[in-house]
Amino acid sequence: VRGMTRPWLIGLDWGTSSLRATLIDGAGCVIKEDARPWGITHLPPGGFRAAYDAVTAAWRAAWPGLPCLAAGMVGSRQGWVEAPYCDAPAGVEALASHLAAVAEVGLFIVPGIVLSGARSDVMRGEETQVIGALVNVDRGCMVLPGSHSKWVDVEAGRIIDFRTFMTGEVFSALRDHTILGAFSVPEVPDQNSFDRGVRTAHDTAEGIASLLFSARALVLTDRLPASGALEYLSGLLIGDELRSAPEGVQPLLIGEASLCRRYQRAMRLCGIDATIATPDVTAAGLWRIACCAGLVATDRTTFDAP
Amino acid sequence: VRGMTRPWLIGLDWGTSSLRATLIDGAGCVIKEDARPWGITHLPPGGFRAAYDAVTAAWRAAWPGLPCLAAGMVGSRQGWVEAPYCDAPAGVEALASHLAAVAEVGLFIVPGIVLSGARSDVMRGEETQVIGALVNVDRGCMVLPGSHSKWVDVEAGRIIDFRTFMTGEVFSALRDHTILGAFSVPEVPDQNSFDRGVRTAHDTAEGIASLLFSARALVLTDRLPASGALEYLSGLLIGDELRSAPEGVQPLLIGEASLCRRYQRAMRLCGIDATIATPDVTAAGLWRIACCAGLVATDRTTFDAP
Repeated sequence: VRGMTRPWLIGLDWGTSSLRATLIDGAGCVIKEDARPWGITHLPPGGFRAAYDAVTAAWRAAWPGLPCLAAGMVGSRQGWVEAPYCDAPAGVEALASHLAAVAEVGLFIVPGIVLSGARSDVMRGEETQVIGALVNVDRGCMVLPGSHSKWVDVEAGRIIDFRTFMTGEVFSALRDHTILGAFSVPEVPDQNSFDRGVRTAHDTAEGIASLLFSARALVLTDRLPASGALEYLSGLLIGDELRSAPEGVQPLLIGEASLCRRYQRAMRLCGIDATIATPDVTAAGLWRIACCAGLVATDRTTFDAP
Repeated sequence: VRGMTRPWLIGLDWGTSSLRATLIDGAGCVIKEDARPWGITHLPPGGFRAAYDAVTAAWRAAWPGLPCLAAGMVGSRQGWVEAPYCDAPAGVEALASHLAAVAEVGLFIVPGIVLSGARSDVMRGEETQVIGALVNVDRGCMVLPGSHSKWVDVEAGRIIDFRTFMTGEVFSALRDHTILGAFSVPEVPDQNSFDRGVRTAHDTAEGIASLLFSARALVLTDRLPASGALEYLSGLLIGDELRSAPEGVQPLLIGEASLCRRYQRAMRLCGIDATIATPDVTAAGLWRIACCAGLVATDRTTFDAP
């Protein structure tokens, strides 16, 4: 502990397939982390409690009373304790005032956000990343690529609208369970095929339905290398997602670095100028929500000289 | 045999997942049939030859010299003998003059058709169904719903253009391997949810990418019964396919009866007036191709009094 910045919060990013615990300092930055494959559908023996103890016990013993805040599917109906969705628009205040508690261990959980106007949509976990990315800005479009890509509109620090694209999950399902993957060689980087897929889907006036099979037909007619078929398919799906981008948008990309670069490249092909957010926005978001909820002291002088 | 119409041809509809053998009379109609789950990826021990013998040996013994013609994936690169694709436009003459032969057993195989102009696409098996449906017409749009739906344009008896939609296969992959199926109850007929999905996808100006997740979000927000989620998803995918329908088209639906009725209903919701073809178009198509290839006598008087 000596020589280390004092920790103020334990943050948990607890999703469907993984659990990442972070020890967070008084500036919302990560001091230490511990990642396990213990998503809520892949819990170890002993369930939520055992997973929680495994990643937090040493830190709680070293710093008794350290508050702990989690975000993600751990707060879903299938999670440890349900943290019911907040209605959009919602910002840090709304989230902080609707935390759920796992009373037995003193853990708090950030709620997700629901849209229930003309369209229905939900997010859980991404709201915390967005809040963490709102450091120097309080408005704009944030794009969080992944299994379920989210396009999020922020105004005055609040999430006012969002849209889910199942791009990553659809890609995996098509690759692993349709003819499009059956004859493809293992994925190899092939930027040409990726770019071609992006442009093809982005430029079409129709839906992507009639384009998917081209990933197979182009190979059969020797117009696409078999080694590029999956990159082309990935490009088609991302290009189709980008067709919904609002005119003139300049998104902030949030998420895993290589995936963000992939989206940034695709966006550039479609005339969209995107920047990539700094990493660790989840920890920053948990920190901001914890401060707003009064889980940690928010007087800056306290952080510098605890 | 006594009292039975004389058979003139053995027809095989040999696809990826099943093999259907038919004994065909001199009018191109089915006298008898034998269906097995022996698609080219599910062959019995002994492979193609064993499957072929099992379904045809008795007929060949009863009527020595009876010609045999097959259509479908049996002629693909993964099939018994490859029947290379014919270029579109192609009609019965082009197909009949490019049959492949499995010399060891005297079987002929109908080639598929390839598009290699501005777009690439392929069909194999559907060309025979289309030829079989061209009895009273020689032009129009034929729609063959299924794992890979085909929209086929016919002029002067020839297939001039077509488009593949992976609607059925995408539905199965999404149902079985994404979150959309994970929480859904087993499929139950629910026409309201199906209709709603069709309309939602057909009316959108964007791609379907952002709509798929609504099959989950609408359930989570109590706006769609969980029991209707898969019907809604099916409607979304079919509605998206129908967005590509040419203005004013009056398609002929070809295929399995209940699936054709499902498409007919969806088309009606989108203002498209479709009719459903008579069954057994595959046998009729094999018959027309066999006649054109000289595999069977084509003098009608011979059929009536063999």
